[in-house]
Amino acid sequence: MIPTIKWEGNYIYLIDQRRLPNRKEWFVCRSFQDVIAAIREMAIRGAPAIGVVAGMGLSIGAQSIETENYGVFRKRFLEMAEQMKSARPTAVNLKWAVERMIKIVEGMHGHQVEEIKETIRKESQMILERDIEINRKIGQCGLALIPDTATILTHCNAGALATGGYGTALGVIRAASEAGKDIHVFVDETRPLLQGMRLTAFELREDNIPATVIVDSAAGYLMRKKRIDLVITGADRIASNGDMANKIGSYQLAVLAKENKIPFYVAAPLSSFDLDLENGDLIPIEEREPEEILSFAGHLVGPESVNAYNPAFDITPAQYISALITEKGVLAPPYRSSIKDLLKDP
Amino acid sequence: MIPTIKWEGNYIYLIDQRRLPNRKEWFVCRSFQDVIAAIREMAIRGAPAIGVVAGMGLSIGAQSIETENYGVFRKRFLEMAEQMKSARPTAVNLKWAVERMIKIVEGMHGHQVEEIKETIRKESQMILERDIEINRKIGQCGLALIPDTATILTHCNAGALATGGYGTALGVIRAASEAGKDIHVFVDETRPLLQGMRLTAFELREDNIPATVIVDSAAGYLMRKKRIDLVITGADRIASNGDMANKIGSYQLAVLAKENKIPFYVAAPLSSFDLDLENGDLIPIEEREPEEILSFAGHLVGPESVNAYNPAFDITPAQYISALITEKGVLAPPYRSSIKDLLKDP
Repeated sequence: MIPTIKWEGNYIYLIDQRRLPNRKEWFVCRSFQDVIAAIREMAIRGAPAIGVVAGMGLSIGAQSIETENYGVFRKRFLEMAEQMKSARPTAVNLKWAVERMIKIVEGMHGHQVEEIKETIRKESQMILERDIEINRKIGQCGLALIPDTATILTHCNAGALATGGYGTALGVIRAASEAGKDIHVFVDETRPLLQGMRLTAFELREDNIPATVIVDSAAGYLMRKKRIDLVITGADRIASNGDMANKIGSYQLAVLAKENKIPFYVAAPLSSFDLDLENGDLIPIEEREPEEILSFAGHLVGPESVNAYNPAFDITPAQYISALITEKGVLAPPYRSSIKDLLKDP
Repeated sequence: MIPTIKWEGNYIYLIDQRRLPNRKEWFVCRSFQDVIAAIREMAIRGAPAIGVVAGMGLSIGAQSIETENYGVFRKRFLEMAEQMKSARPTAVNLKWAVERMIKIVEGMHGHQVEEIKETIRKESQMILERDIEINRKIGQCGLALIPDTATILTHCNAGALATGGYGTALGVIRAASEAGKDIHVFVDETRPLLQGMRLTAFELREDNIPATVIVDSAAGYLMRKKRIDLVITGADRIASNGDMANKIGSYQLAVLAKENKIPFYVAAPLSSFDLDLENGDLIPIEEREPEEILSFAGHLVGPESVNAYNPAFDITPAQYISALITEKGVLAPPYRSSIKDLLKDP
C-alpha cells in the first residue's frame, strides 16, 4: 500500500486522491497555503487524515514565521490556525488537531520561538504515528462484532487513505480479515467523487480482500435480499448524543439497515467526537460545487444550465447506529452516557 | 421537446438516449434486429417506450417475412416475438406489446399475409398514439395528489423519453405545472447511466419546470430536512399485490419516504401491470454489465480487475407505496383488491 502522507524535510507529499487509482501522483505541499489547498480541493480527504495533515500544515506554517518575538509568533500562528480550521467545516478532526497545536503555542509562553516550532513539529509527527496505532486498536475493538463469515457493506473510504494508515471502518475489516475471518465487502461507489469505487475498492484489492463495487442505489436492494450481514462506515464528527456526520448517503444506509434488521456500525477515533455539540443537527454540513455532480473529468454530463445541489455529508441520528467502535472500546446505546463514561477514564 | 420515436417509411428513428442531453443523434432501426439492439443497448429505454418500439419492431419484422403462406408467416413471426420478448426482462410492457401482436396474428388465420402485416402496422402505430393519450390521463388522475406548492423528488426518467411522449411520473409533474401549481423537482441523477441527470433534468429544463439534480445518496438527507413534499416514480412492472419493479434505487426512496412520513407515489399505465404475478419477488431483475458502473465514456474509473455488481432494477413492496396512479384512476392500498376492481371495469 502506498503511504497516504509522507513528510520529508519541509515538504509534505500527499498521494493525490482525486487521481487514484489509475494515476499515482504526489501533491507536494511546500507551504502552509499548499496544505490548505490540498484539504479544500480534496487531494487529501477523510476526517483523520485531514487532522493529521492540518497538524503538519501548521508546523510548516510555524516554520515560515520569521520572528523571535513570542507575541508576534503567537498572533501570526493563531491567524493560520483560524484559516486552517475553516478549510473544511464538517470533520471535527481538523479542529481537534488545530486546537492541540494552539494549546502548545499558548502553553509555551516565555519559551524560545525556535523551541515552540520544534515542539509543534514533533507533535504533528506524533499525531500521524498515533493515528495509525489508534486505527489498529479500533480494528481490534471492532473484531468481536464481525462474524467469522461476513458480507460487509461500506460507504465512501474510511481506509488507509482516509487516515494516517490502516483505516477506521476499513481498519475493522482489515483486522477481521487478518484474524482469518472470511470477509466479502460490497463497496458503495459513493457519488459524486467515487471514493468507494476509486479508493476503497483499490485498498481492498491491494489487500486481497474480496470486494464488489455497487452503485449507491443498490445497497437497499442487497439488504432486502439478505445479502449484507452488517454495514460499517467511518464518521466525520460524532455529537455527544451519538448522532454522527459522515459522507452523504450514510444516513440512507442506516435507515435501510434498520428497516432490514442489519447492524449499522460506525468506526471512528475519539478525535472525531465533538462533545460541545448536543446533537448531530448542530454539525455544519459542507455544500460543495454543483460541478462535482454535473461534470466528469472536465466534461459536462448533465444538461447545460441545470442546477445541482451537492451536500457532502449527512447526519445519521443515533437511533440508527448499532454501536460506535473507538480505540478505547465499543460503545452501545444510549450513547450520551456510554460516551461520557468512556471519556471519563484516563 | 424532440420526439422520442419517429416512424418514417420502414425505418424507426430513435433519439439515442445514451448520448443525450449533449449530443442529439438518431439511432436508425432499419430491421427487426436493429430494434432488438436498440432496446438491449438502451438507445431507447423506459418501460412504456420499450413497449411502443417492440410493437414497431415486430411490424418491421413482419414486413420482412417474404411469404404468402399464413403458416410460414406465423411460425417466423412467433420466433421474432420470442426474441423481442427476451430483449430486456424486467419491464412487462415489452411482453404486453408483443402479446398484442401475437393475438392479431393468431386471430387473423385465413387472412392474406399482406392484410395481417397492415393490421400489425396500424396496431403498433396506435400503441404509440394511445400511449401519449394514456400519459395525459395519468397526469390528470395524479393531479389531485399534488399540493398547489410542492417540492417533488423523482428518480430515473419516467418522462416523454421513457414513453411515447409526455411521461408517467413526469406526466403527473407536467400536468401539475400546466395546472398552474408551483412545482420544484429534485432529480436523482440515477447511477449508473444517469438517466435522471441526463434525461429528466433535460426534459424539465425544456419545459421550464425548476429542477435541481442531486446524487442518489442525497435523497434521504433532503427528506429528513423536510425539503421534499412527495416522491413520484414510474414503474417497470407492477405485480397483482401492488409490489413494483423500477430502476435500482426506487426501493430505497420508498423506505426513506415512509421513515420520513412523505408520500411515495408510482405512476404507470395499466400495461405495466402483470396480474400473473402474485408478488414483486417473482419479477425477473435484469443484471447488466459491470462496465456500466466501472467505466465512464470508455475510460476505466475504478481500479483494474475489481468486480462490480449491477442490478438494473429493484422491488418496492406495496407496503411502501402510498398510491398507484394509472390512466383509469388512483389506486389506494390494499392493492390486490383495488387493482382487481379497477381492471374489472370495461
